[in-house]
Amino acid sequence: MTADADIAPGTVYLVGSGPGDPDLLTVKAKRLLEEADVVLHDKLPGPDIIGMIPEEIREDVGKRARGERTSQQYTNERMAELAHDGKTVVRLKGGDSFVFGRGGEEMVYLAKHAVPFEVVPGVTAAIAGPGVAGIPVTHRDYASSVSFVTGHEDPTKEDSAVDWGALADTGGTIVVLMGVGKLPEYTRELREAGMDPDTPVALVERGTWPDQQVATGTLSTIVDARDDIGIEPPAVTVIGDVARERQRVVKFLQNGAES
Amino acid sequence: MTADADIAPGTVYLVGSGPGDPDLLTVKAKRLLEEADVVLHDKLPGPDIIGMIPEEIREDVGKRARGERTSQQYTNERMAELAHDGKTVVRLKGGDSFVFGRGGEEMVYLAKHAVPFEVVPGVTAAIAGPGVAGIPVTHRDYASSVSFVTGHEDPTKEDSAVDWGALADTGGTIVVLMGVGKLPEYTRELREAGMDPDTPVALVERGTWPDQQVATGTLSTIVDARDDIGIEPPAVTVIGDVARERQRVVKFLQNGAES
Ligand SMILES: C[S@@+](CC[C@H](N)C(=O)[O-])C[C@H]1O[C@@H](n2cnc3c(N)ncnc32)[C@H](O)[C@@H]1O
Ligand SMILES: C[S@@+](CC[C@H](N)C(=O)[O-])C[C@H]1O[C@@H](n2cnc3c(N)ncnc32)[C@H](O)[C@@H]1O
Repeated sequence: MTADADIAPGTVYLVGSGPGDPDLLTVKAKRLLEEADVVLHDKLPGPDIIGMIPEEIREDVGKRARGERTSQQYTNERMAELAHDGKTVVRLKGGDSFVFGRGGEEMVYLAKHAVPFEVVPGVTAAIAGPGVAGIPVTHRDYASSVSFVTGHEDPTKEDSAVDWGALADTGGTIVVLMGVGKLPEYTRELREAGMDPDTPVALVERGTWPDQQVATGTLSTIVDARDDIGIEPPAVTVIGDVARERQRVVKFLQNGAES
Repeated sequence: MTADADIAPGTVYLVGSGPGDPDLLTVKAKRLLEEADVVLHDKLPGPDIIGMIPEEIREDVGKRARGERTSQQYTNERMAELAHDGKTVVRLKGGDSFVFGRGGEEMVYLAKHAVPFEVVPGVTAAIAGPGVAGIPVTHRDYASSVSFVTGHEDPTKEDSAVDWGALADTGGTIVVLMGVGKLPEYTRELREAGMDPDTPVALVERGTWPDQQVATGTLSTIVDARDDIGIEPPAVTVIGDVARERQRVVKFLQNGAES
């Protein structure tokens, strides 16, 4: 750990932007975006929120990879550099920074490099996406747990970190992030693990954005529904009986584009 | 379904308040609290947020059970009644309404009773509590899933809806809500299911409140830590390697009261 004398004069705020609707920013996130000297962001907060930030203070670090450095290394170094220059920095992430957002890694990097930081939680798309589509992720009668999992990896890979069988065995709701492309693989995996092929499934694309789309089906039919509607990332997959609730309320939902 | 002519002239907003810090209300929640005719709430949003709402418009439905009606029945009927009277109603819940909040049941009740509603997602304490305590619920290197589960039930009961063994097998982070009292039972259950007794565990009480408290330990020691610090509900239990990250950053955390 660096000596106290070397502590950066600036602060980095690790801020979750929520799922994309600027109205779902927290009060604190909104204020910090107005007060920041620099906002480091990628594409996930979405056009409406990114559009609120004055161009002079925003830096897109999503795609940036200079020379040997990965985008993540670049972001880490840039945050620390700005804070050591005395800047108030907002590191803005989609949803909540600590849900598949690498916020944990960034936080540890900052602490190691003597940069004061603060965690500002956000509304995760993993809950809000299903929510605005009329799907509660838990339910007293039939979902006493909910698991959030990445669909990014190939589930048929020997050393996949995700144990789909164990997730099926929990009996709770499963919400898959980054899971549009591998949908055929993990829905098959779940069926093979003994999950009922008629289990309701919904895909919610760009939840809370003006162009939100939803596709619904079952563990057997959802791949076709995805293709019919043309669901693309970012989207979450909700697997479980809760996905059926949407039908009971769909008439009253905003953004009700439907399969 | 009721005929269109009978649709209530008012609207019910199912609003998540976030974990308790008024700064973590969403922009939309804050505006709705200012504009509502009536706010129906229980205790979970916490004193700071409840204190923001003018007394004339707030009704505590948390404890109310009149005659034969349960508190939940009373709340459902009251929401519908107010909306049919043309009122703008905010149904305010701690965290997000759809995470162990019965928001799903309320939404379906409203749709059935021809009451227009809107879901306004909030920051869940299940993510924000750990987050502000320096604990990311997922981590690229060692937590590719996170499960939220209720600790309310007795895990040694034959027909417990929660399968602790399956949760252990996921290999991901486990966050237990309503799990202060039954901590001894489910930590034992997880050890018996083969989870390493040295798995890091943290309890975060009143996350983001001014009197936030944190206790840390392992699957074997956390019950003693709970008792030493005097952790009481509302608190979340975080089980998994991610709980160790707190130690690496604790120096920079706000509200850093520590075990
Ligand atoms: C790298 S993860 C980040 C998740 C983010 N930290 C959160 O808490 O929402 C990206 C994934 O989040 C999900 N996602 C993000 N925003 C979304 C939205 N508005 N609607 C649906 N899914 C979204 C998608 O599954 C996407 O692939
Ligand atoms: C009925 S559940 C409701 C959860 C809420 N809907 C949410 O999304 O945060 C109540 C439980 O939430 C957790 N909880 C709520 N607020 C909390 C806070 N500020 N800090 C820690 N845990 C909290 C506790 O586990 C509590 O027993």
